[in-house]
Amino acid sequence: MRAYDLIMKTRRGEPLTGAEIRFLVSGCVSGDIPDYQLSAWLMAVCFQSLTPAETLELTLAMRDSGDRMDLSGIHGTTADKHSTGGVGDKTTLILAPVVAACGGYVPKMSGRGLGHTGGTIDKLESIPGFSTAIPYDRFIDTVNRAGCAVVAQSGHLVPADKKLYALRDLTATVDSIPLICASIMSKKLAMGADCILLDVKTGSGAFMKTEQEAVQLGEAMVRTAKLAGKRCRAVVTDMDMPLGSAVGNAIEVAEAISVLQGQRHTALGKLSLTLAAHMLTMCGRGTLEQCLAAAEQAVDSGTALERFAWMLQCQGGDPAVAEHPERLPQPANSLTVTADRAGYLTRIASEEIGLAAMELGAGRRKAEDVLDPTAGLKLHCAVGDPVTPGMPLATLYATGVTDFSAAAVRVRGAMPIGEAQPRVQPLLRQVIDTEGTAG
Amino acid sequence: MRAYDLIMKTRRGEPLTGAEIRFLVSGCVSGDIPDYQLSAWLMAVCFQSLTPAETLELTLAMRDSGDRMDLSGIHGTTADKHSTGGVGDKTTLILAPVVAACGGYVPKMSGRGLGHTGGTIDKLESIPGFSTAIPYDRFIDTVNRAGCAVVAQSGHLVPADKKLYALRDLTATVDSIPLICASIMSKKLAMGADCILLDVKTGSGAFMKTEQEAVQLGEAMVRTAKLAGKRCRAVVTDMDMPLGSAVGNAIEVAEAISVLQGQRHTALGKLSLTLAAHMLTMCGRGTLEQCLAAAEQAVDSGTALERFAWMLQCQGGDPAVAEHPERLPQPANSLTVTADRAGYLTRIASEEIGLAAMELGAGRRKAEDVLDPTAGLKLHCAVGDPVTPGMPLATLYATGVTDFSAAAVRVRGAMPIGEAQPRVQPLLRQVIDTEGTAG
Repeated sequence: MRAYDLIMKTRRGEPLTGAEIRFLVSGCVSGDIPDYQLSAWLMAVCFQSLTPAETLELTLAMRDSGDRMDLSGIHGTTADKHSTGGVGDKTTLILAPVVAACGGYVPKMSGRGLGHTGGTIDKLESIPGFSTAIPYDRFIDTVNRAGCAVVAQSGHLVPADKKLYALRDLTATVDSIPLICASIMSKKLAMGADCILLDVKTGSGAFMKTEQEAVQLGEAMVRTAKLAGKRCRAVVTDMDMPLGSAVGNAIEVAEAISVLQGQRHTALGKLSLTLAAHMLTMCGRGTLEQCLAAAEQAVDSGTALERFAWMLQCQGGDPAVAEHPERLPQPANSLTVTADRAGYLTRIASEEIGLAAMELGAGRRKAEDVLDPTAGLKLHCAVGDPVTPGMPLATLYATGVTDFSAAAVRVRGAMPIGEAQPRVQPLLRQVIDTEGTAG
Repeated sequence: MRAYDLIMKTRRGEPLTGAEIRFLVSGCVSGDIPDYQLSAWLMAVCFQSLTPAETLELTLAMRDSGDRMDLSGIHGTTADKHSTGGVGDKTTLILAPVVAACGGYVPKMSGRGLGHTGGTIDKLESIPGFSTAIPYDRFIDTVNRAGCAVVAQSGHLVPADKKLYALRDLTATVDSIPLICASIMSKKLAMGADCILLDVKTGSGAFMKTEQEAVQLGEAMVRTAKLAGKRCRAVVTDMDMPLGSAVGNAIEVAEAISVLQGQRHTALGKLSLTLAAHMLTMCGRGTLEQCLAAAEQAVDSGTALERFAWMLQCQGGDPAVAEHPERLPQPANSLTVTADRAGYLTRIASEEIGLAAMELGAGRRKAEDVLDPTAGLKLHCAVGDPVTPGMPLATLYATGVTDFSAAAVRVRGAMPIGEAQPRVQPLLRQVIDTEGTAG
């Protein structure tokens, strides 16, 4: 088998066999296939796409390129969740303890943020003492005790994705639905949970700019997961504006805690509990309605917050943070941006808000950047709210930064005020529960 | 400027500027742009093509990537010719002395063969003593004295093409019209002749399998040359069957000499003189009809053969070969393949014939293979000829090989005999003389 011939087949739109795709993936990991052949193949995939069968084979070959997590030591049905990345997305911090409180098990491996999007690991690491690098045994033990645990991605899972993603990132071949699907699903399958909920973000702050693209990606991932023998659903949710009112690390943990403490009627609270309900129903805990009621009850009764505190304790964090979020690191400096005219807030541009938070120290320009856990911002208005001159729009926070001027200009520009009240789209756009069919 | 952004532009079908294309080409030659980015860009070009303006910029940037030949020492208008490669194509050996005899100057740099197609340099090197690696001064001097000289490609011209071609050859990105155009025309422009005739082969033995593709390539090359300030024409000629009756090295030189000695009414003779006439008319030696008459006169009077002998002498070869081609190396072994039934010869599959010649030692599998100058074959029938059982179809020759069985089977399979007499297409299909317009 020669890589040349496989590149030519894909270039011509002829599907590759499973053996051919495995040859490419193993040659990628071993280094036997040079990068210039892989990148030519990746570009051909961007133009010709892959069939569902090829996408499945690619996903499985990537899944099998390294270690696979053994979750057999967990005492019940496991549920995992993945978000394609957004600004202010702290749903994992809420839904994981809610699912745990309702009888599900959430063994979660998560990533760090880069650019304008935050990462769950960065958020959790703002909690004093919390470790996302616990050993395997303690991870399984935490899931069994607390019902949920969140650790950072390990180096041994899916090396093919590390290699291919680095190459895609340098060769303008990131945005291809089968490649994104294989990248995400290979990691989810290597992680090994029984049920997978995918949150595909759409809108200006998301990778998938249109709802149509988001649906295509969601369908490809659900189909692939089902063909691989998993229970899987995808939801398409809005990322035209940030999720919730806090963007940063400690500040997002505090907002998540406020939901777990009972403030579940916010847009963030409703979405997080709906996602938890989807995970619970896949885990066999009843209908979606029953699971949503159970999730609300878990918040109202305080059992979800209790699970959150247990997880903190098991992972070395200060469990008192759950009741007293003021124990989280607090920023030394702040600046409030106000409205300069009357009207309606017409938009909150997620990407710009995310970049402002990054500039304040909440995010990374480069992978090696060190974060300020206190940096970030709080939005005081939602899209469609009437505003008057001088009304606070957002407060910016940081400890390492004292000059807020550039970030303030960016935030001001990201929150335009207009004459007409805009129509606000629902946060949850679609639920994708496609039946898997061999393609 | 970042290579990533340029790859993305091409991927999206947005044209690159001249500065952007020059950045890619200079980064390619310097090694500043890694191969995996170049190959991703090349694949994007295969799908999105390039505009005429981009193709011109790419050609010029490649032309300027190394040395350019200085032809200012030649005493008249210079004409170059390029063929996209075929089986039995010895037209250069005929048209160069014919053009020289009619007042044109032909400073020709040529290549070696690989695979089923032969190279003019290999053919000339079968002439005892002939050197294709003469110094620059002697090259110019030979052109001034004989009117023509043929040397091997030097290492200093168009290094960008060497690098890009090697990458295309490994990444299934060879067959893209703008990339082929830039590869060929950058070398022709670096060579620097005033007039360029392009012979684009079409058919089963050619790189361009359909006439439509051949015309597209011809048009792209003529347009590019004209925009670069050159006189240029392209002809599209048939390569469904080999050109002439000899395929090999010494054997093709002998066939070319037979035309120069007066056998100009063969298909090979007519095509070669037509090509010479096109070169002469571009050189300002009269109308196409006048130039064709002059070319025929140059053969009939023996002045073309004389120029050929002068060129041999100037380049160290035995000039007596021109009058006595039996002085060329002669094969030690031969085998004649005969017809096994009555009917008409329906086809002579060029690629198979070329591969048989290669197996006999006339061509290279790999660039480092050493050739047998006596190896090759002679076709005794043309497509459409009636044949009877036992009639010779072709004779195979070699010195280094004694077992002709595999080559004989291949040749027999390449010359099928059928009941119906096939229609024979004309050899010269189209002349392309597009006006250059900025794209």
